[in-house]
Amino acid sequence: MSNFGFTALRLVNPYNVAFREARSAVGASAVMKAATEYPDLPSAIADCTLVVGTTAAGHRELRHPLRRLEYGARLIRRAEGPVALLFGSEKFGLTNEDMSRCHWLMHIPTRDEHRTMNLGQSVALCLYELARDPRAARRAPQPVRPATAAELDRLTDMLLDIARESGYVNPRTAASAEEKIRRLVRRLNVPERDTAVWFGIFRQILWKLGHHK
Amino acid sequence: MSNFGFTALRLVNPYNVAFREARSAVGASAVMKAATEYPDLPSAIADCTLVVGTTAAGHRELRHPLRRLEYGARLIRRAEGPVALLFGSEKFGLTNEDMSRCHWLMHIPTRDEHRTMNLGQSVALCLYELARDPRAARRAPQPVRPATAAELDRLTDMLLDIARESGYVNPRTAASAEEKIRRLVRRLNVPERDTAVWFGIFRQILWKLGHHK
Repeated sequence: MSNFGFTALRLVNPYNVAFREARSAVGASAVMKAATEYPDLPSAIADCTLVVGTTAAGHRELRHPLRRLEYGARLIRRAEGPVALLFGSEKFGLTNEDMSRCHWLMHIPTRDEHRTMNLGQSVALCLYELARDPRAARRAPQPVRPATAAELDRLTDMLLDIARESGYVNPRTAASAEEKIRRLVRRLNVPERDTAVWFGIFRQILWKLGHHK
Repeated sequence: MSNFGFTALRLVNPYNVAFREARSAVGASAVMKAATEYPDLPSAIADCTLVVGTTAAGHRELRHPLRRLEYGARLIRRAEGPVALLFGSEKFGLTNEDMSRCHWLMHIPTRDEHRTMNLGQSVALCLYELARDPRAARRAPQPVRPATAAELDRLTDMLLDIARESGYVNPRTAASAEEKIRRLVRRLNVPERDTAVWFGIFRQILWKLGHHK
């Protein structure tokens, strides 16, 4: 909850050992200190204008609208007024009575063969999806600036010198080797900020190979 | 892992108590039985063509490309060949040496004030994002068919009969009440599949009110 900026934790009939342990956990103190206990579900959700239950199973017999997390989260983000997101107990989930108090139900899209999830993971996934920024999937937030053509030329020249000095390139095949190495370097996608390190490495190799330009 | 269809779990220096417990856990047996132990990280990732590390902190000093989960997951889905997604220990995360073996790093977008996450939740979030279907956010998978105008008319007529029989509507204001109730019913967004139940409830009320049409 704290990771994704959710602060209002309301508990109905919490397992007291776990609750007390969590209250004393490092880092989560703000959310846990503000956590409030309620005698029953209706009083816990009384001020909410949208109540969404979470479930692993289909519950088609309940005739309750069931939405995938991705779509449900979108509806929740658009909702006016406070929204309650309900999670049942680790073992049994929400009861049918709990679910009858929900406007609709939401499920995490899992493999059909393995639907039940750990409670803490379910909460994390739902809150992650609610806080998720769809635009973030579209572009790299940290584009890596590639080396310029001049820098690649310099790298290529140094690598060619190394190839000659070390005997990798012989005079007979020098012309084709030059083109080959030029293409080789272009396929590396060298980041600009790494070029200085490469120059340093190549310069040192050339010095050791006895090459003094 | 099993929830989202990931099967190849590779462990380096696992905490053996937890590993043995997890192996015997109900439901996760297929993934856990197939889990393999490796003596070190290089041997665990040897066959992978893309190695992605996970981190909570920025590690700007490492000059390693750091990508948000939403964008990183997109790159992973496009990758050719096996991809390794690395998670460090619960307490310390990946070491700098581990990270130096990664092509790039990925972080879960959290509040800056609370970045560190539980290991199990981090794994669940990353695999959820990898398995996530962006199209699922756009449309309701289960559109609820609304009641037809004819059904709403019948509901309105019955509700009007109830209003009259119960004395809510008096003859003097009957005309405006009729329009008011007609609009009231339209604002409810009654699902078609619920109309039969409403007809039954209204019919029963009317019968009890002594109304026999």
